[in-house]
Amino acid sequence: MIQPVTDKMSGARPTLETVRDAARRLHGRINQTPVLSSRSLDQQLGARVLFKCENFQRVGAFKARGATNAVFSLDEATAGRGVATHSSGNHGAAVALAAAERGIPAWVVVPENAARVKRDAVARYGGQVVDCGAGMTQREEGLARVVAETGASVVHPYDDYRVIAGQGTAALELLEAHPEIDMLLTPVGGGGLLSGCALVARGLPGTVQVIGCEPAGADDAQRSFVSGQRVILDSPDTIADGLRASLGERNFALIRELVDDIVTVEEAQIVDAMRVVWERMKIIIEPSAAVPVAAILNDVIDIRDLTVGIILSGGNVDLQRLPW
Amino acid sequence: MIQPVTDKMSGARPTLETVRDAARRLHGRINQTPVLSSRSLDQQLGARVLFKCENFQRVGAFKARGATNAVFSLDEATAGRGVATHSSGNHGAAVALAAAERGIPAWVVVPENAARVKRDAVARYGGQVVDCGAGMTQREEGLARVVAETGASVVHPYDDYRVIAGQGTAALELLEAHPEIDMLLTPVGGGGLLSGCALVARGLPGTVQVIGCEPAGADDAQRSFVSGQRVILDSPDTIADGLRASLGERNFALIRELVDDIVTVEEAQIVDAMRVVWERMKIIIEPSAAVPVAAILNDVIDIRDLTVGIILSGGNVDLQRLPW
Repeated sequence: MIQPVTDKMSGARPTLETVRDAARRLHGRINQTPVLSSRSLDQQLGARVLFKCENFQRVGAFKARGATNAVFSLDEATAGRGVATHSSGNHGAAVALAAAERGIPAWVVVPENAARVKRDAVARYGGQVVDCGAGMTQREEGLARVVAETGASVVHPYDDYRVIAGQGTAALELLEAHPEIDMLLTPVGGGGLLSGCALVARGLPGTVQVIGCEPAGADDAQRSFVSGQRVILDSPDTIADGLRASLGERNFALIRELVDDIVTVEEAQIVDAMRVVWERMKIIIEPSAAVPVAAILNDVIDIRDLTVGIILSGGNVDLQRLPW
Repeated sequence: MIQPVTDKMSGARPTLETVRDAARRLHGRINQTPVLSSRSLDQQLGARVLFKCENFQRVGAFKARGATNAVFSLDEATAGRGVATHSSGNHGAAVALAAAERGIPAWVVVPENAARVKRDAVARYGGQVVDCGAGMTQREEGLARVVAETGASVVHPYDDYRVIAGQGTAALELLEAHPEIDMLLTPVGGGGLLSGCALVARGLPGTVQVIGCEPAGADDAQRSFVSGQRVILDSPDTIADGLRASLGERNFALIRELVDDIVTVEEAQIVDAMRVVWERMKIIIEPSAAVPVAAILNDVIDIRDLTVGIILSGGNVDLQRLPW
């Protein structure tokens, strides 16, 4: 785990208004992503499915929203000392990009086993890559060292109210454009996207069901949701590399209160759903984004006759190593 | 070559108004495809590039436009006898789909060496697949037999004014939404898309440069354009399978009159451009669609400081056999 951010840094528990503030802060800095649908999928499913394409977001994932909101929420003096995080994935690139846009330094502690493309992305956006060993302890030590040396502010990938509010803007854009949506599905890893989107769905008028979708091999969120106790998995095992994290504390509290259900899907269903989206919709999504699609393709969730919104969380895949 | 359609069947030489009629005919039957752009590509190129996503079109390619316009242009009695074509690619699926929408039969003569996915697509849309040998003579004989037996009307993939007008609706949507476009690029194979789009660009107010982009290994359009004589290539060789056809007669006449230039790109540039679009834009395009992108990425066309529209012609690729 990244060391907990102080509550002062993370801000107060967000509301719909906090998400609206985030949307104003993000305006012009991130992409307002399109919403796509597929006639053939709708026909097959007997439903209308609206896909919010965060795979087209800057850095290729919704992570740009939360990181940008956090970085642009800092006061001038704090921002001047820069920001830091550790990440083997999209969040590192998102923090680097947001810092570059604000004109402040970003340090991203990257474990030695991180994918080459992820490391390169951090550097491409102007972030300082700080190498560390593969273990979580080494990542945390690396980050602590950076913070001690630079005074940079830590931007946690999900357990941070500013990040949660930023991720919620994806649902805000989708539900304001399509108030006819009956049900909203997102993948769940650390819970930043799901908790932010649930805040919006519950805050807006009308009743939108909110369901988190998770790989069976990393089902800490479902276990936590069912048991009422936050479960941390030792060794999550899933192709959905964005969803291996365990639920954050703030995320869990919001999800318990606001989310209707959490469902799981199998690995083969994730790969199959990913391929269905590539073939039918001609868009590139990463395995994590395919998780809610897998849930509806395999009747894990009954969506017949409903209008369903799905946040396609990202599109960063290694085109050299496709899972089929 | 498919046997020439009669001028009566193909209609009169189209104008901007013919394309507007086609747009009204297509309304609700095909997708009004989105226009996407990439901040990182714009930055790299020092230009603004607007991509018209015909890879998101029904059947995965702009071909749905021309085929649908042709099929819905037929009078009731003629339509009742059905439609026929031969095709190893997207046009066959497009004709099958349009016929299904009109509730009439479609026969598609498919050579034995056609990709399995293309044959399956024809059948999935309800078309009758008629097998034939791989040679052009066998394709033509197969089609002639179908027409003799059924009285079906032939819908040529490009050398048909109704098809040309239909393809032009892609440019109409793009240029009406973005009148700031300075230059319009399309791939060129048989010339249906290029000639239809040129009609629109020349017909609308303002001056939009129109440039056709072609693989060097199938450069009949460039040779024809330069020499003023329609050149037919014996054995075009390119990964861009949608662009192996030689220019149609009607298409060549329109292109000579309306198009500013035709440029060529190399095979490696096509594969590279295809991958750049997949990686940066997270959308799936087929090699043919990458041809204009290759032209701007390799400075074959100077676009600095311009607003450029590109028709991404299609997204049908075999995900099992990627060219990198």
